[in-house]
Formats: sequence, structure tokens, C-alpha cells
Amino acid sequence: MEIISGGICAPKGFKANGIYCGIKKTNIDNQNSKTPHKNDLGLIFSEAVCTTAAVYTTNKVKGAPIIVTKKNLEKTNKKTKAVIVNSKNANTCNADGEEKAYRMCCLAAEKLAVKPEEVIVASTGVIGQVLPIEPIENGISDLVNGLSENGNEAAATAIMTTDTIKKEYAVQFEAGGRICKIGGMAKGSGMIHPNMATTLNFITTDTAISAEMLQKALDDIVKVTYNCLSIDGDTSTNDMVSLMANGLAENKEITGFGEDFETFKSALYAVMMNLTKMLAKDGEGATKLLECKCTGCPDKDSAIIIAKSVIGSTLFKCALFGEDANWGRILCAIGYADAEFDITKVDVDIKSEFGTVTVCRSGAGVAFSEDAAAKILSSDEIQVLINLNQGNESAMAWGCDLTYDYVKINGDYRT
Amino acid sequence: MEIISGGICAPKGFKANGIYCGIKKTNIDNQNSKTPHKNDLGLIFSEAVCTTAAVYTTNKVKGAPIIVTKKNLEKTNKKTKAVIVNSKNANTCNADGEEKAYRMCCLAAEKLAVKPEEVIVASTGVIGQVLPIEPIENGISDLVNGLSENGNEAAATAIMTTDTIKKEYAVQFEAGGRICKIGGMAKGSGMIHPNMATTLNFITTDTAISAEMLQKALDDIVKVTYNCLSIDGDTSTNDMVSLMANGLAENKEITGFGEDFETFKSALYAVMMNLTKMLAKDGEGATKLLECKCTGCPDKDSAIIIAKSVIGSTLFKCALFGEDANWGRILCAIGYADAEFDITKVDVDIKSEFGTVTVCRSGAGVAFSEDAAAKILSSDEIQVLINLNQGNESAMAWGCDLTYDYVKINGDYRT
Repeated sequence: MEIISGGICAPKGFKANGIYCGIKKTNIDNQNSKTPHKNDLGLIFSEAVCTTAAVYTTNKVKGAPIIVTKKNLEKTNKKTKAVIVNSKNANTCNADGEEKAYRMCCLAAEKLAVKPEEVIVASTGVIGQVLPIEPIENGISDLVNGLSENGNEAAATAIMTTDTIKKEYAVQFEAGGRICKIGGMAKGSGMIHPNMATTLNFITTDTAISAEMLQKALDDIVKVTYNCLSIDGDTSTNDMVSLMANGLAENKEITGFGEDFETFKSALYAVMMNLTKMLAKDGEGATKLLECKCTGCPDKDSAIIIAKSVIGSTLFKCALFGEDANWGRILCAIGYADAEFDITKVDVDIKSEFGTVTVCRSGAGVAFSEDAAAKILSSDEIQVLINLNQGNESAMAWGCDLTYDYVKINGDYRT
Repeated sequence: MEIISGGICAPKGFKANGIYCGIKKTNIDNQNSKTPHKNDLGLIFSEAVCTTAAVYTTNKVKGAPIIVTKKNLEKTNKKTKAVIVNSKNANTCNADGEEKAYRMCCLAAEKLAVKPEEVIVASTGVIGQVLPIEPIENGISDLVNGLSENGNEAAATAIMTTDTIKKEYAVQFEAGGRICKIGGMAKGSGMIHPNMATTLNFITTDTAISAEMLQKALDDIVKVTYNCLSIDGDTSTNDMVSLMANGLAENKEITGFGEDFETFKSALYAVMMNLTKMLAKDGEGATKLLECKCTGCPDKDSAIIIAKSVIGSTLFKCALFGEDANWGRILCAIGYADAEFDITKVDVDIKSEFGTVTVCRSGAGVAFSEDAAAKILSSDEIQVLINLNQGNESAMAWGCDLTYDYVKINGDYRT
């Protein structure tokens, strides 16, 4: 497996584009952004029909685009050719939401000469404000005409809201005697919490794979990547991951378990795990990536629950921002995780590029150098290593620190 | 029922005291405090033996004082005479924790001429630092000698950590032909989350009531008061509520259900609900009390879960701090609450002393005046009123806004 460039356009047969059509009030939405991004409307297109898998938010309040996309996938038996997505407005909790979301599908479909049902639609931004459809109507020709094999960056910036960097990742690997590729793009960066396919994520691949195995791979990998991510504990109404496979790599179609399926899953994990880390590191206001690895667990689910509990602790997130080795808050968060284990066997270390400090052995504190700990915590990527010492399963979870800027960004998001 | 002064010393036969013994480095712990509080060691005492009920944290990491108190109550069949409590150090995750906690019981017991097992012990503060016992040994004589019927304030300040005000409440009521009293004190103000008897709370009463009914009353009221409170989603290792009843009111002992038991529960609710509101309003860094009332629910548990989901939403807490009527985040938090209901019937209003604004009807946004909403949100006590319109049960929950100061306080708590 090899990391490659090109994001969602890396796999054969996928084109993309992104434009500024005027849903955002100005054409620069986030002054603090490290990636300049004026765009607010994005498109992904494959002429070859794609077998498609998707995962949606578990929030009872579902964005209109989620409802329309679900219906579309049902109608076409999960065959799609395009994604249309806007930022700045979530098109959620609006009386005319479904009508507008379907209208977005129709606008794209007409210009692309496909069926409206073959279009996935997504929106991200403020909840409960009416989506202005005119900018999309006016922009659709430019959006479609500008589709290109290098359009991944334009699309990846079109989905950004409070994100400060675009998020893309792609890999290639060999399966069934052919080179296959998987590419992805994602947006964060607040209202992000496990329990569903947090955030908007669009994954493309040219691998030939059956609908059933594609969905199975997506479900398995979402569980250990996006669903192990938390920025703030809030579960969005519009979360979606879509995975489109057009088969143009011409490998022998993956239709069951076996080596090719495992290779495909490993590549999908690489793409989604790296996007997950990018999302965590670019969490609203974040200055540090927090990675928690929980090993020595009696079962996989417990490992996930404990790792997520630690990265979700508001208090530990604040301590991390303050670069304070307040390990008692780690142990506290392990303790309230909803899993069964013996707390008196738990070891905890904190690690970064600057070294490792042992803070807890067998559930009790260990004397350590505050100076050494401070140096380690000064890094912008921190690992918390937990060993339960009561089994062989492990899991990872990703989060970030809680900062003044998170509060600032979210104290006044609508204006 | 009538509100009275005196806190934990209001009921007959209870004395209290609080001193500065030197567990805190300086004798002024919190420069921002609205209540000056140098104290770090508190005591409550009833010469008459007390029937006792208690509720403890559900965190698997349990403070040593929790373990020792549980053992003591088992040994004496829930008969106690005193509480000793320190702040600044949680005495948790220390190898010598239980030994030190029991030593605190022994020190108090010796001076009070009671058995060590008749003493409840509690600690609050930093986790994982060795508790210095010398200051307590040196201070115990002063602590006991200073016991008085007016010592409630000295005790209430001795349990403060990042709290900015002391928290006391007391009521009197008639039961079994006698005037009975209930008094309480509590401390917050971070690492506070439902799922147990969040925070340290000590309740005293002179009501005569059986151990069984006392525990039943406490369990019922904790569920709808402290357990409906969240500051930051973190469940402390040291949470405890104790309720001591010495029977000196000489009412006919409450030994079963009936009017007296209901009256007692109403009075206990008044004390614990008001302490809960004080804890929420004084949450770390908080500028606003957030009260969420969820009505029209199919069952009580759903009402509690939904109300708690709203007051726990990090994003809505930030919006509240920014006085931004971002009601979509309320609906989002209702939507991810783990309860079964029809989101399309939900109404939401936001209310304060300055008026009420309707923001959502039947699950969809309603046009409202941003100016009127801003005025309403400028109050320091905000109510979110949710009507599910699908039943007759209701519940309340309490929280606060998320502010720069919360991050500041918790970025550097240990130093």
C-alpha cells in the first residue's frame, strides 16, 4: 500500500469541482483559515455507475439532504454517479428542506445527464435557516462545466465550514492482480461526536466490489475511525459518509471475505483513519491532536469505549490545552467509561515526539518529573497510552484540546 | 414549608465547624471567590446518633474516603454521628489513601468520643497527590473545640474548591405533629455530571425516619436533582451525598409511605433542588444558569434524558455564553438524546426574566426577532422550555454556559 496524491480524484474515472456560488455571504468564510477557501458548492462525478455504501447520523433530527439521499439510494438500489454538496447552510429543520435537497439533485442531474436519484446530496452549516436555492441554480453550469480530474482540491475546500485546512487522503494497493485506488475528503470541525459517521466524508474508489461487501467494509472501518473521534460530544444532524466504487480498476470483483477484501479494508482504514486524525487535529479551536490508545483489554468494544471516554473528557481536554500533566483526570475518565474491568491493574503513560512519561501503574500514581512532563506536553500531538493488563484487544480514539478559541468560535457561530 | 437560615445547623442537635489547617498552600485558595474562604477542613456533629442514607459516585475509580465511608456505614448499620471533610486534596489514587481516610475518622472520633466507624469521611480536590495528614492532626483539636450551632458557614466554606460562593439551604415543615427541619450544604463546581450523586453534599435533618425510608427518599430525590445537573460531563471519583437524621424533632417516626413521607420528600426536594441550582449557577467559569424543562413526555425517564441532553450540549453552552439564539443546537441535542419520541411534534421556547421567544414549533424553525431574543439571552438565568406534545410526564435539568474561564480554570488547576 502506498500513499498517493489526488484525493477523491485519485481513483480512475472520478472528476470533481468546487465553486463559490454565493451561499456564503462573502467569498472568504473563515479569516483564520490556513487553507484559503472561498468555495461553497462542490461536485463529484463518475461517468461509470458506482456501487455505493453509506452511513448516516443517528440523530433523530436528520438534515433534509440525509433523508433525500437515503430515498435516492433505495430507489436505485445503491447505484450512484454523483455527489452535490454545499457548505454554510445545513438545510435542516426547514419546512421546504426535502424539496430543496431534491432540487439540488435535479439541478446536478440535468447538467450531468443522469437521473436525479443517482445523485447523493449533502449540506453542512447552520441548522434552521432556509437554504437559498438561487445561488445553486445560478452556479450549476459553472460547477458542472468545470469538472476535472484535478478538481479534488476545489471540491475539498467547498465543504469547509470552520475547518482551517482541507482534508484529503488517498492510497493505492494491489487486489485481484490490479492496482486499485481509494481517495477521500472530509470536513469537520465542530458538532463532532462518535455514534455515527461524524462529519461529511466522501470516499471514492475504482475497486470492483459488490454492494454488500462495500457496505460491510464501510461499517467495519467507520466503527474504528470516525466513530472513535470526538471534538465536543455533539452529534450532528447531517453526518454522512458515502463510499462510491466504480470498478474501473478492473480487478476481479470482491464478492466475499478473503485476502482481497482484507487488503481493501486495510486501504480504506488508512484513508479514513488519516482523515479522522486530520479532523481531530483541526477540531474547532484545537491546538493539539490527542490520540488515545487502549491496549490489554478483555474485548474490542471495551477498548473503544475506554479510549473514547478519555478523548471526550472536557476536563482532560482543558488540562491538555494548559499542558498540565493532570493524569488523575485520565484515570477518572477511564473510571466512568461504561465497561467492565479491574481499575487496579491499569497503567497509563503520556507520550509525544519529546519522550514518554509514566504517570500511573496498577491504578495508582507514580512520581514523575513535572519538567519532563511539561516538555512532552508542549508537542502538538499527544498520545495517551493505556494498558488495562487484562486481555489482548486494543483500540484507538482521536480528539483534541478544549481551548478559548473553541468557546469563541461557538459563542457566535451564526453571524 | 418555609425557608429558614442555618444550613446544616438548622435541624436540632447539629453542630459544625470549619478551619484552615494547612492542606491548602495559602489560606486564600480562590482569588476570584465571592465568598472569602480560607478553610480547608470541616466537621459536622450530632451527639444524638443519626440514621444515615448515602449515595456514592458510580465511577470505577473511587476516592479512598468513599471506600472507607461505605465500610463504616456497613459496620454500624448506617448509624453515624459525624462528618469530617477536607478540600484541596481528593485522597484518590494514592497507595496510602484508605489508611489516611480512616486516620481522619480516628482523629475526629477520638476528640468527639465516638467510634471511628460512626464518622463519615470525604475529600475533594486534586486526584493522585498524597494527602498530607499532619495539618489535620495538628488542627483536629481546634476543629472539634470550635464546634457550634452557628458553625454551618465555617463548614460550608471549608468544602469549597473552585466554588466562588458557599452553598447552603434549609427548610422547615410539619410532620407527625412536630416542626421538622432539613438543612444542607454542597460544593461544586467542576467534574460534575449526572449518573451519581455529583459533588459533595451533606444533608442533616432532625426528622425521625427509618433507615429504609430515608434511603428511599434520598434515592428518589437525587434522581431528579443532583443527577439532573451537569457542568462538564465529567463524573468525579469522590462524589457523595450523605443524609443524617437524628430524630430530635420527636415527630412520629416515618416508617412507611403516606402523607408524612411525601411531606418529607417535598422538603428534601426543596433543599436539594435549590442546592443543585446553586451548583449549576456557580459551575466553573459560568456566567449563566441554564434550566431546561421538558414537558409533554411519554415517560419520566425520557423527560430526564432529553432535558439532560440539552443542558449537556457543549455547543449550546457556548452559544449561551455568546448570547446567540442558536436554537438549532437545542433541537440537535434533543435529537441525539437516547429516548424514543417523534421529533416532528417538538416545540421549543427560550425564556428569561425579560420575556419568552418561540423558536421552534413541530420540529421546524419559527421566524423570531433576533433583538428580542438577544434581550432575553442577556439575563443570567435562562430557561429552555421543551414540549414534546406526546404525553404528560415532565422533568428539569440544570447546567451553565461554557466560557473562556472554564478553560482557563481547568487548563491549570493543579498549580
